[in-house]
Amino acid sequence: MAENRLGQQTLVFRSEPALLASAAIVGPKEGQGPLAEFYDVVTEDSLLGEKSWELAEARMLREAAELAVKKADLKLSDIDLFLAGDLLNQIISAGFVARDVNIPFLGLYGACSTMAESLTLAAILVDGGFADRALAAASSHFETAERQYRFPLEFGAQRNPSAQRTATGAGAAVVAAGGKGPTITHATVGRVVDMGLKDPTDLGGAMAPAAVDTIAQHFRDTGFKPEDYDLIVTGDLAKVGKAVCEELLKRAGLHIADRYNDCGLMLYDHGQDTHAGGSGCACSGVVLCGYLLREMLAGKYRRLLLVGTGALFSPGTYQQNRTIPCIAHAVSIMAPDVVEEA
Amino acid sequence: MAENRLGQQTLVFRSEPALLASAAIVGPKEGQGPLAEFYDVVTEDSLLGEKSWELAEARMLREAAELAVKKADLKLSDIDLFLAGDLLNQIISAGFVARDVNIPFLGLYGACSTMAESLTLAAILVDGGFADRALAAASSHFETAERQYRFPLEFGAQRNPSAQRTATGAGAAVVAAGGKGPTITHATVGRVVDMGLKDPTDLGGAMAPAAVDTIAQHFRDTGFKPEDYDLIVTGDLAKVGKAVCEELLKRAGLHIADRYNDCGLMLYDHGQDTHAGGSGCACSGVVLCGYLLREMLAGKYRRLLLVGTGALFSPGTYQQNRTIPCIAHAVSIMAPDVVEEA
Repeated sequence: MAENRLGQQTLVFRSEPALLASAAIVGPKEGQGPLAEFYDVVTEDSLLGEKSWELAEARMLREAAELAVKKADLKLSDIDLFLAGDLLNQIISAGFVARDVNIPFLGLYGACSTMAESLTLAAILVDGGFADRALAAASSHFETAERQYRFPLEFGAQRNPSAQRTATGAGAAVVAAGGKGPTITHATVGRVVDMGLKDPTDLGGAMAPAAVDTIAQHFRDTGFKPEDYDLIVTGDLAKVGKAVCEELLKRAGLHIADRYNDCGLMLYDHGQDTHAGGSGCACSGVVLCGYLLREMLAGKYRRLLLVGTGALFSPGTYQQNRTIPCIAHAVSIMAPDVVEEA
Repeated sequence: MAENRLGQQTLVFRSEPALLASAAIVGPKEGQGPLAEFYDVVTEDSLLGEKSWELAEARMLREAAELAVKKADLKLSDIDLFLAGDLLNQIISAGFVARDVNIPFLGLYGACSTMAESLTLAAILVDGGFADRALAAASSHFETAERQYRFPLEFGAQRNPSAQRTATGAGAAVVAAGGKGPTITHATVGRVVDMGLKDPTDLGGAMAPAAVDTIAQHFRDTGFKPEDYDLIVTGDLAKVGKAVCEELLKRAGLHIADRYNDCGLMLYDHGQDTHAGGSGCACSGVVLCGYLLREMLAGKYRRLLLVGTGALFSPGTYQQNRTIPCIAHAVSIMAPDVVEEA
């Protein structure tokens, strides 16, 4: 078997690629949430003075990318590869930002799992000796996503309780060979799981089985136990999906409830009228790049498993009455002191 | 510098990951073209008995993936990772096929450069010891692309002479550690180049400068000369873009005309009324996986440089009057006997 694999789906990064720096930019709604103090920038509105929400989303992604590189004490020209994606058709936010930052680019589509996918590939590139420094990033935007996936906001459609709010923001992280910072030790690449659900207003419920599949596989492949992690955090299952995920894992003999949270529930307060919680590439993107990595450096979490979750559907597949295939990728991250002890 | 890099943008695969097998499936129009005899399957119509063209495209991708694995004398469960993408919103062809083949999946979006992007990542995974066998694939479909990017066919819009025809088909290739077959030796990951063009009916012209940028960088990074290749083949610049690419490279001192072709010109005959030529992920996908790899095994080409080209725009960015950012990735492939001599 290939030397850097464990079990069926897990990759091992033996050189300990480090998250040198990260940056998170969010919109005003996210800036009123419980993690406000952890973001680098909270914008005053969701248009940022641009002519369209799509331009505003790209600007957030570009600024997060530039800021992460600056915080790592590097220039954009020091970065070997840029790995990014978003929710918009033809990942236009990532494509235009790749042009602006002028870094060789591999475009990704993993729906809301994109931050985990880009981190996985960044770790692969650095650990494999293909890059000294890679930049992993993802963005989403409430207004761009609503008009693409659901209804134009002006239509005023009512949302049902299981619906989630697409996070407005962008997260970016620099992954490098050597250097200080939390390290990426493993990644479990997910399979696509489709339980036949078709309701695009309950994506958390649709994605939960994919998260369960990847989390269970991660533990089978690595031999780790839930207790090895201080925190297992899914990307955007939100209220409905998190409960399903927890219950299905319990039935499989994996009790994670005492160390499990979901970025979609961490992003907003209950009183913010976001229905089931947050979603979108930026949901796990900003919670990781803003809050979680800072708290790892502060000693709050020694080891965490980020499980990015994505629903691989489109308005077109919905109109054709097709199901919603889902995916989850897990990225295992260790705080610096844990690495040194190991 | 990272050990498996050359120059600014090129990755080196020292373990010689091999293209064990490949498969190409095309629609009826492509099956009437000059490369007809090289495809594994030519379908009778473009619907394949499915209810929608989108379902037909996914079926082509699935069958190409399954056939490539079968031709490599493997089962789907022998494949460690599936790397694929297509042109449709939210890469639904690749996402649904990833579900069906049940292989851990990394979704890609590189527009028509996707085959080169998936091959690059497959080589990275295999060479880095993260996979024993990876499956790289891409698809596109004339009818699904027309109604998504331009007009529904029923509208009967007239096309201008620089417009290209999106190829209907799918290509897939198994990349493995060890094993026999042409090997991937280098990949030059492209930067996004945007010369300010906005015309979606002249994508070849828009993409040509990106191809030039990557080809010139490939030669700078590796020290190779055009004469080191028997064939340099761009993905889908077609008639307009190929002439621009050739001229711009000539001005940069790189004379490739005597060994240069474009998959978009190889795919169809002049009499097939495809205007400037072919395009789409399947264009370079089926020309590589059907024709070129077979001809390498037959001894016609000893060394070739596949330069996948992609236009990273969407109908939305066109409506917002934005430019068309473009990208090109180059993959260097050697025939087995050349590898043995080296």
